[in-house]
Amino acid sequence: MSDNGTPPLCVVGTLAFDDVETPSGKRDGILGGSATYFSVAASHMARVGVVGVVGEDFPAEFRAVLESHDVDLAGLEVDPEGSTFHWAGKYEGDMDQAETLVTDLNVLETFAPQLPASFRKCPYVFLANTDPNIQMSVLDQLEDPRLVVMDTMNLWIDIAREPLLKILERVDGLMINDAEAKSLSGEDNLIAAGRALLRFGPRFVIVKKGEHGSFLFSEKRLFALPSYPLETVVDPTGAGDSFAGGVMGFLAGTNAQRVDDVCRAMLYGTVVASFTVSDFSLDVLGSITRMDLDARADELRRFVRV
Amino acid sequence: MSDNGTPPLCVVGTLAFDDVETPSGKRDGILGGSATYFSVAASHMARVGVVGVVGEDFPAEFRAVLESHDVDLAGLEVDPEGSTFHWAGKYEGDMDQAETLVTDLNVLETFAPQLPASFRKCPYVFLANTDPNIQMSVLDQLEDPRLVVMDTMNLWIDIAREPLLKILERVDGLMINDAEAKSLSGEDNLIAAGRALLRFGPRFVIVKKGEHGSFLFSEKRLFALPSYPLETVVDPTGAGDSFAGGVMGFLAGTNAQRVDDVCRAMLYGTVVASFTVSDFSLDVLGSITRMDLDARADELRRFVRV
Repeated sequence: MSDNGTPPLCVVGTLAFDDVETPSGKRDGILGGSATYFSVAASHMARVGVVGVVGEDFPAEFRAVLESHDVDLAGLEVDPEGSTFHWAGKYEGDMDQAETLVTDLNVLETFAPQLPASFRKCPYVFLANTDPNIQMSVLDQLEDPRLVVMDTMNLWIDIAREPLLKILERVDGLMINDAEAKSLSGEDNLIAAGRALLRFGPRFVIVKKGEHGSFLFSEKRLFALPSYPLETVVDPTGAGDSFAGGVMGFLAGTNAQRVDDVCRAMLYGTVVASFTVSDFSLDVLGSITRMDLDARADELRRFVRV
Repeated sequence: MSDNGTPPLCVVGTLAFDDVETPSGKRDGILGGSATYFSVAASHMARVGVVGVVGEDFPAEFRAVLESHDVDLAGLEVDPEGSTFHWAGKYEGDMDQAETLVTDLNVLETFAPQLPASFRKCPYVFLANTDPNIQMSVLDQLEDPRLVVMDTMNLWIDIAREPLLKILERVDGLMINDAEAKSLSGEDNLIAAGRALLRFGPRFVIVKKGEHGSFLFSEKRLFALPSYPLETVVDPTGAGDSFAGGVMGFLAGTNAQRVDDVCRAMLYGTVVASFTVSDFSLDVLGSITRMDLDARADELRRFVRV
């Protein structure tokens, strides 16, 4: 395990073997997981520390992909007893939602994240989708973080609402998709839903709408951004986590945290997600440069200028 | 019939009795129709001439609503043999689509629009959704219009594709919703669909996406605009025609026609549609002022600024 000091940005999330089928093709056993997409997406703008767990079966070449992006793996636990988390899913038609075929939690079932000492003073933290009790235990290990943003999903909204509401009182930002925003808030209208979620505690709420872009809600401003216009989407897997990585990478890389900064960061989240979905796994996301991001961010700015 | 000279903007479309049911309530026999929504929406920015037909049953107070917005009714035919077009529809859930319950074409069945002499040199023309053969006959009556924009719907894409493609070669702009754009182009991806439609002839294509806003496609630029953020939508009827009225009203009112002007005009289309959907019929749309439009257009600009 390397120790390069405290990384400016940490993510707690999954590393996975994915089997993915889309209208463009089928790939088995490819590198996936929320922490994977997040950290590689963010790595173009800030050094990222990963907190997660894999099994002994996690291959050296997958670890090497992360290391090639200077991702700090001091928080990556290898569980000698189990296998790496495995997800299989399928996308059809306009690919707005995955049909999950298999979820083998494996090493995730007993995972209790322990932050390495070097991560505890990390200023920018992303809590990817997981049990809110686990998210809370991570939050308790942090020493005075500057900006904590979390994701969640319908499963936790349904079965763990109480701990979810507790942690929402303690984070700066919530990132969530449109269906989840409606479900968590109990509002049918998305604008009403976003505003209602602010009352749960976060200073800002980002609602991800897939091909329809994203909204930011805060006390002082509402902001809308379309997705980057793509004629072809090969595999939507990882789009949301890449978006989060782009947002948090931009903020950590510029040491920014105001709402206006978050809006600008959403440009980078959107752009990095557009690279992710243009191929399977990290095939494109892993090979782009900061210049590619800047060029598409400029394009996206022109796309919305009026 | 009044003759106030050539209006800067004409619309060929319907005037209707609507029965509408939404989660907010139910109204019967209210004033509706594409030309109605279009002309009142546009009237805040330019004087509009209406070409359409009603029956003897069309009440004086509905005519008075249009006249109170200085709409030129020289092209409004009253068919003594028939009843006014009647539509009944219902919206549920997130109200993204109407379920049509009744369509009584009535006087529309035999309508062959004749432009009054004062309308033939009209520079800005909107051909609302109708049989493309009728749209073509109107186009043939115009003398050198500056900007002609048309709407269409799935019915004509399915049963009148040939005349539709012919008229597309002759108009400047096409306004169409997302499902229609995909169906007409044969493309599943909306960005690919918009680009494909440009190849049918129009200089620009505006794709309306309801609550998700709108796209503009042209050779030289793509443009995206979200819808105005509303917490409550009472009745979506007329949103698309109001949008068209806002766009064309802005262009006719400023004598503009470049693609960048069309993008700015979409701000006004979006804003005027947001007033339309906040109540039934013209209950709000009919009572706003140009200042209300400008204020929301400024808000919408701030909503997308990054």
